[in-house]
Amino acid sequence: MIGPCFQDIVKASERIRSFIHKTPVLYSSSINGILDSKIYFKCENFQKAGAFKFRGASHAVSTLNEILKKKGVATHSSGNHAAALALAATMHNIPSYIVMPENAPRIKKLAVAGYGAKIFYCSSTLEAREQTLKQVVNKTGAIFIHPYDNEKVIAGQGTSALELLDQTPALDIVIAPVGGGGLLSGTAITVKHMSPTTKIFGAEPAGADDAARSFYSGKLIPSLRPQTIADGLLTSLSERTFAIIRQNVDNIMIVREETIIQAMRMIWERMKIIVEPSAAVPFAAVIEHNDLFRHKTIGIILSGGNVDLDHLPF
Amino acid sequence: MIGPCFQDIVKASERIRSFIHKTPVLYSSSINGILDSKIYFKCENFQKAGAFKFRGASHAVSTLNEILKKKGVATHSSGNHAAALALAATMHNIPSYIVMPENAPRIKKLAVAGYGAKIFYCSSTLEAREQTLKQVVNKTGAIFIHPYDNEKVIAGQGTSALELLDQTPALDIVIAPVGGGGLLSGTAITVKHMSPTTKIFGAEPAGADDAARSFYSGKLIPSLRPQTIADGLLTSLSERTFAIIRQNVDNIMIVREETIIQAMRMIWERMKIIVEPSAAVPFAAVIEHNDLFRHKTIGIILSGGNVDLDHLPF
Repeated sequence: MIGPCFQDIVKASERIRSFIHKTPVLYSSSINGILDSKIYFKCENFQKAGAFKFRGASHAVSTLNEILKKKGVATHSSGNHAAALALAATMHNIPSYIVMPENAPRIKKLAVAGYGAKIFYCSSTLEAREQTLKQVVNKTGAIFIHPYDNEKVIAGQGTSALELLDQTPALDIVIAPVGGGGLLSGTAITVKHMSPTTKIFGAEPAGADDAARSFYSGKLIPSLRPQTIADGLLTSLSERTFAIIRQNVDNIMIVREETIIQAMRMIWERMKIIVEPSAAVPFAAVIEHNDLFRHKTIGIILSGGNVDLDHLPF
Repeated sequence: MIGPCFQDIVKASERIRSFIHKTPVLYSSSINGILDSKIYFKCENFQKAGAFKFRGASHAVSTLNEILKKKGVATHSSGNHAAALALAATMHNIPSYIVMPENAPRIKKLAVAGYGAKIFYCSSTLEAREQTLKQVVNKTGAIFIHPYDNEKVIAGQGTSALELLDQTPALDIVIAPVGGGGLLSGTAITVKHMSPTTKIFGAEPAGADDAARSFYSGKLIPSLRPQTIADGLLTSLSERTFAIIRQNVDNIMIVREETIIQAMRMIWERMKIIVEPSAAVPFAAVIEHNDLFRHKTIGIILSGGNVDLDHLPF
């Protein structure tokens, strides 16, 4: 149950190579000057469908056998995993069925539909989503691809760090945001294996701090009423991602909402790239806990760039 | 008077290499799908000081002899040339003197001051600017670096296209925005020499269409009251840039304000990068005159990314 090993991530990387973007790593002299550190940003905001999620979804779809592929894939999500799975399915010429809450942002509905998925709407409770997904799976025979509690998905997410370490000089610290923990899990397995002296940090909003509380108490404590602008980080760890993170991650840092917004704006203004609030959370940790990062060489996974330009926090 | 030759641009490229960023070329599958063409975007929005202007300014500064360097450099500008010249001067350890209108946006004043320039404020008329600049030059002995009517500056701006052609497959068309014409001039000289079958287009806002009117009438006709959101393109051609453009450019296209905003938003949303309105003008030409560009391979110079996030047009 503990998840993929490093070799699984290497294999995932080969398998998805022709489907994904190898995203660039960017840095900003002015940001490095302000924070007195060297920060390399791995730009998954430039990934297909606008987020790292496309790596995991592509890998999960590509490892289905031909019989399963014909049935298609399904998930419930109103966010980046939905769009990623829809696009991955379309690129493999198989159907996808996405359960979304009726009140999901219009822009997300359009994206998922635009990538070719069939959408099933439900009310916004977790129960309604799971119930609707069950019905869809029963009716279509589609394979449920969980957004993070899935070994193939985690292996796919770990391929971003594989590229990052190849694209940068030796890193003292790698930081990834943590919601359900798929990205942090894959990242940690990769970094621990390829660069054992590099520290691996997760970063999450104070308003959705289940990973930090679980990590430091040693018990899985899901968030009950998470609240944060970082809407990609509202979900809680699963047993699987919690186990991987306990074993491979050095620290989980929490950050305030205002630091997330400040970090996001600084990335937009200084780097001229668009990142969503969730993607700014690791950089917010560098700003808020600057003592720990001064004079360090840091790799940050910028997880995604899907924002609604009509509703910016600044 | 006619300006630099291709060899001057090659030499400029070598001379400024260690000062500038070699900017990436990005593309978007979804944009290519929507417009039924292949578009490569040369990201000068990622250039130091946020715009291609840093190439020309760096080159102009680096070619001064040691005696002139000590005097420093001066210009009048409220825009990207001011920030670029200030930063180039600081990187060469020489002083810079920038004349800016009092009513320039606060964010621009901060940027120019942040790069180490001494700022002289004047009222916003062209006469006041030129008068103040004259006084500054008389007092300090600094060398005036014109934003575009300067052979070294034009040679520097031409280095972006040099990289672009090296980073892309064969291009049918290259498009650059045109304000004073420095970027378009340098681009045209480079492309004409390296790829004689590639067409070179300029693009400008209908509200500041002096280049198109001059190009098609064969007479230099400066804009009297230019008005456009593309604030980097308000200036008019000089005799020098007009002569280079007549000789090397195939077409100047004008675009509507609403298409500029649409193009800017599409680049932000689809490519997850921040470009200023002026930078979106060539892509606006592809949208507005799509018939001419369908099935073509196109290179676009994204000239800059300096926008005030508190005043977005959408």
